[in-house]
Amino acid sequence: MSSPVSPLRVTVWSEGRHEQRDEKVARLYPKGMHAAVAEGVTEHLGAAATVRTATLDEPEHGLTEEVLAETDVLTWWGHIAHGEVADEVVDRVHRHVLAGMGLIVLHSGHWSKIFTRLMGTTCTLRWRNGRDRELVWTVAPSHPIAAGVPHPIVIEEQEMYGEFFDIPAPDELVFVSSFSGGEVFRSGCTFRRGHGKIFYFSPGDQDYPVYHHPDVRRVIANAVTWAAPAAPRTTPTLVRSETGWFEDEGGPA
Amino acid sequence: MSSPVSPLRVTVWSEGRHEQRDEKVARLYPKGMHAAVAEGVTEHLGAAATVRTATLDEPEHGLTEEVLAETDVLTWWGHIAHGEVADEVVDRVHRHVLAGMGLIVLHSGHWSKIFTRLMGTTCTLRWRNGRDRELVWTVAPSHPIAAGVPHPIVIEEQEMYGEFFDIPAPDELVFVSSFSGGEVFRSGCTFRRGHGKIFYFSPGDQDYPVYHHPDVRRVIANAVTWAAPAAPRTTPTLVRSETGWFEDEGGPA
Amino acid sequence: MSSPVSPLRVTVWSEGRHEQRDEKVARLYPKGMHAAVAEGVTEHLGAAATVRTATLDEPEHGLTEEVLAETDVLTWWGHIAHGEVADEVVDRVHRHVLAGMGLIVLHSGHWSKIFTRLMGTTCTLRWRNGRDRELVWTVAPSHPIAAGVPHPIVIEEQEMYGEFFDIPAPDELVFVSSFSGGEVFRSGCTFRRGHGKIFYFSPGDQDYPVYHHPDVRRVIANAVTWAAPAAPRTTPTLVRSETGWFEDEGGPA
Amino acid sequence: MSSPVSPLRVTVWSEGRHEQRDEKVARLYPKGMHAAVAEGVTEHLGAAATVRTATLDEPEHGLTEEVLAETDVLTWWGHIAHGEVADEVVDRVHRHVLAGMGLIVLHSGHWSKIFTRLMGTTCTLRWRNGRDRELVWTVAPSHPIAAGVPHPIVIEEQEMYGEFFDIPAPDELVFVSSFSGGEVFRSGCTFRRGHGKIFYFSPGDQDYPVYHHPDVRRVIANAVTWAAPAAPRTTPTLVRSETGWFEDEGGPA
Repeated sequence: MSSPVSPLRVTVWSEGRHEQRDEKVARLYPKGMHAAVAEGVTEHLGAAATVRTATLDEPEHGLTEEVLAETDVLTWWGHIAHGEVADEVVDRVHRHVLAGMGLIVLHSGHWSKIFTRLMGTTCTLRWRNGRDRELVWTVAPSHPIAAGVPHPIVIEEQEMYGEFFDIPAPDELVFVSSFSGGEVFRSGCTFRRGHGKIFYFSPGDQDYPVYHHPDVRRVIANAVTWAAPAAPRTTPTLVRSETGWFEDEGGPA
Repeated sequence: MSSPVSPLRVTVWSEGRHEQRDEKVARLYPKGMHAAVAEGVTEHLGAAATVRTATLDEPEHGLTEEVLAETDVLTWWGHIAHGEVADEVVDRVHRHVLAGMGLIVLHSGHWSKIFTRLMGTTCTLRWRNGRDRELVWTVAPSHPIAAGVPHPIVIEEQEMYGEFFDIPAPDELVFVSSFSGGEVFRSGCTFRRGHGKIFYFSPGDQDYPVYHHPDVRRVIANAVTWAAPAAPRTTPTLVRSETGWFEDEGGPA
Repeated sequence: MSSPVSPLRVTVWSEGRHEQRDEKVARLYPKGMHAAVAEGVTEHLGAAATVRTATLDEPEHGLTEEVLAETDVLTWWGHIAHGEVADEVVDRVHRHVLAGMGLIVLHSGHWSKIFTRLMGTTCTLRWRNGRDRELVWTVAPSHPIAAGVPHPIVIEEQEMYGEFFDIPAPDELVFVSSFSGGEVFRSGCTFRRGHGKIFYFSPGDQDYPVYHHPDVRRVIANAVTWAAPAAPRTTPTLVRSETGWFEDEGGPA
Repeated sequence: MSSPVSPLRVTVWSEGRHEQRDEKVARLYPKGMHAAVAEGVTEHLGAAATVRTATLDEPEHGLTEEVLAETDVLTWWGHIAHGEVADEVVDRVHRHVLAGMGLIVLHSGHWSKIFTRLMGTTCTLRWRNGRDRELVWTVAPSHPIAAGVPHPIVIEEQEMYGEFFDIPAPDELVFVSSFSGGEVFRSGCTFRRGHGKIFYFSPGDQDYPVYHHPDVRRVIANAVTWAAPAAPRTTPTLVRSETGWFEDEGGPA
């Protein structure tokens, strides 16, 4: 096994707008939603991870080439300002994911530019902000992302996200949620794209204290560990190969 | 495209015991559960299919070598008498599925000998006979098995089947159900095994009139069409091949 | 089963540039590569399909809204002029695929704008134009796209396409090719995106008469049939749903 | 993340018959094939793993309940004596895999009782003992099992294993091999069954020194790490659940 990245370098990105505009959100997340997500990762990974945060309003949204080059796993939360994310930054994140950086997309991040670009679909869904209870059921119990969480995870109040969720069939379906209104949702999905690993996890909303929920935090920390790259970052490129090129030595895939 | 089998030869198999013992079941299914399933297939496929039925109490359970050789798709329902199905008949059905016969496994058939043998897992699940309402959600809208059914299918009263359902990850997940008690279930799953196609569909129970439900019938009819073999039946076998064996002509896969 | 589209309306799209510039290609494909692909489809589907062609140099590349609205399955071949395909036309094709139109992407179409947009990855690969012999092996013998072809399909001379092919893991892997130089390639891959079905098939090149090969033609015809939509075209959209919205009736997925 | 098992307890199982009967094999593997596999694991995992071996001729084949209960990951090689493995031991291994024990199946183990039982198919294939060169190509470069190996792995002399390999579609396809005779093979495949993780890896044969090959050893060591259970061992069981059972607390999946 190639030696695991140590410590794992995590960047928690968040739009950071609701907290500035909406008192209720500011009360739930006084240091910002990103702070809650970052705390959850640190709580579980401790010294095994170094966690920084970045938000939309920073220059280049805090996601410069330098920051991404030093990021093993990026988490992404956005909602009302997807359109303000610069295409240039999206290009950069896309390139880093395909080269091996892990990406954890949270909740309303389903409609972010980076997620829809990686998926190739609309990523639309059904929704209702109606204080539904969400139950998160594990359907892949041997998956490391599901380690240590109860079955089901009970989230007392949540926004409802329901099917049809227009994503490619996930490589691995880890969680399926139900809502008190009766809807279901593929709430925990893995995807491999290029050399990068992606996890989409739907629990989490600005109007509910979901990122303080201990099991939700554990899932995110598990996902960060799972998404860590297993090899140095390299971008898939077109290669012209002579016959017999591999006889002396192969290269990286 | 190889010409589709025409007409499609369908055998509907059912244990046939509850109907004999339990008045309530006999009232719901006066001609047997198999008759209801068979009617549903005929209702949708008409002249495109010839449908026969077979039950546990017939000699060789009605599944002789001759019957199976003339069956393109077999549907399977069993519940209280899985253990009475002769191993020799299970071997025969297994062999035919691997050689290309389609198989539709219904509801409590999850614990049949043939399904657990094909899956390699326990096929256990969570259950409750408590008059839950089941909602069947489509998560693969382009799949032919989901054609023409509403989203969701509403089944007013049903037995609850919940996760964790111990099956291999399905090749294609077509339906996910929720129950009024909050549980979820991967209720429509495809699997390819050998040269055969398998569909598991969980709605259906002896205590509820589910096989009279128009959408449930449509799904079963769609599945029968989908599972029809695309090629003549052949059993995968170990083959020793000389170098260059394919130069004159390849064979079937 | 919803009644199959009949006859199936197929549009064969091709860049159409090599044939104009390169005598060798013009000799191999005197009526254009699109004509050879179209003939192959007609040869196998006969009256079950109506086939038209369209090329890059037509207004709107021959892919107006009207044409796409009347197209059940589109096939795509391009190579040296991917960059000349108008983004507006790519947007339109993308929208139609997500709404249910089938798409067959051929050979060097792996780097087309429409395929990379649907995949979300670079779609790069390894290649060599060195007269390799390609063997196309079936790894999903029950798949309708593999019906009726030998195992392996032998293509005497071909461009080599090798791994790593930077695509998402296919929903179904149907064919794997080897080349005389030793490389392998996932040469037949299905993907579902939105309501549409996609098949990528790598055999086929302007410098070799691959689209006259009877087995290659059969695969393309099989794929066209497989990719036909099972339901009327609808675009996945964001839906806000009140609690209990489905009680009277569900909708399409 | 649940703390990883430490050190990982690995049991390397091998039939151990060829080495006793065939001088050539005894020369290649003087301490037995199991010793070579065990050395490879230790070479890469060092103190992170404790490795023991067990063979067919030991009482209960060395796989008592006690041994399995203390095994996190079991590797399996067999060939000429699959039929001598006691069904009772196969039952026991099967139960442990479904409860969470990792299983690595090597080469001719494809036809072992435990692998065919877990797969549900014949697991037949095409073969030739003809000194083919095998090239092992990575098709999932972000998978931890592929970490650190060249692309391709070159094995100078090997038995040929070719398609059609009658297995379920793997959950993840990691490697595809080609042989100098032109055949291809899905040579590295993951499967999840119950709570257990399974990896099948085809390189390795008694007639060639493949288990001394540094890259083959690395893959096996990577696979052992990947297959380690993420949670305490539990067997999937049928559970009857009252409405609201999860309100106080959920359980393990």
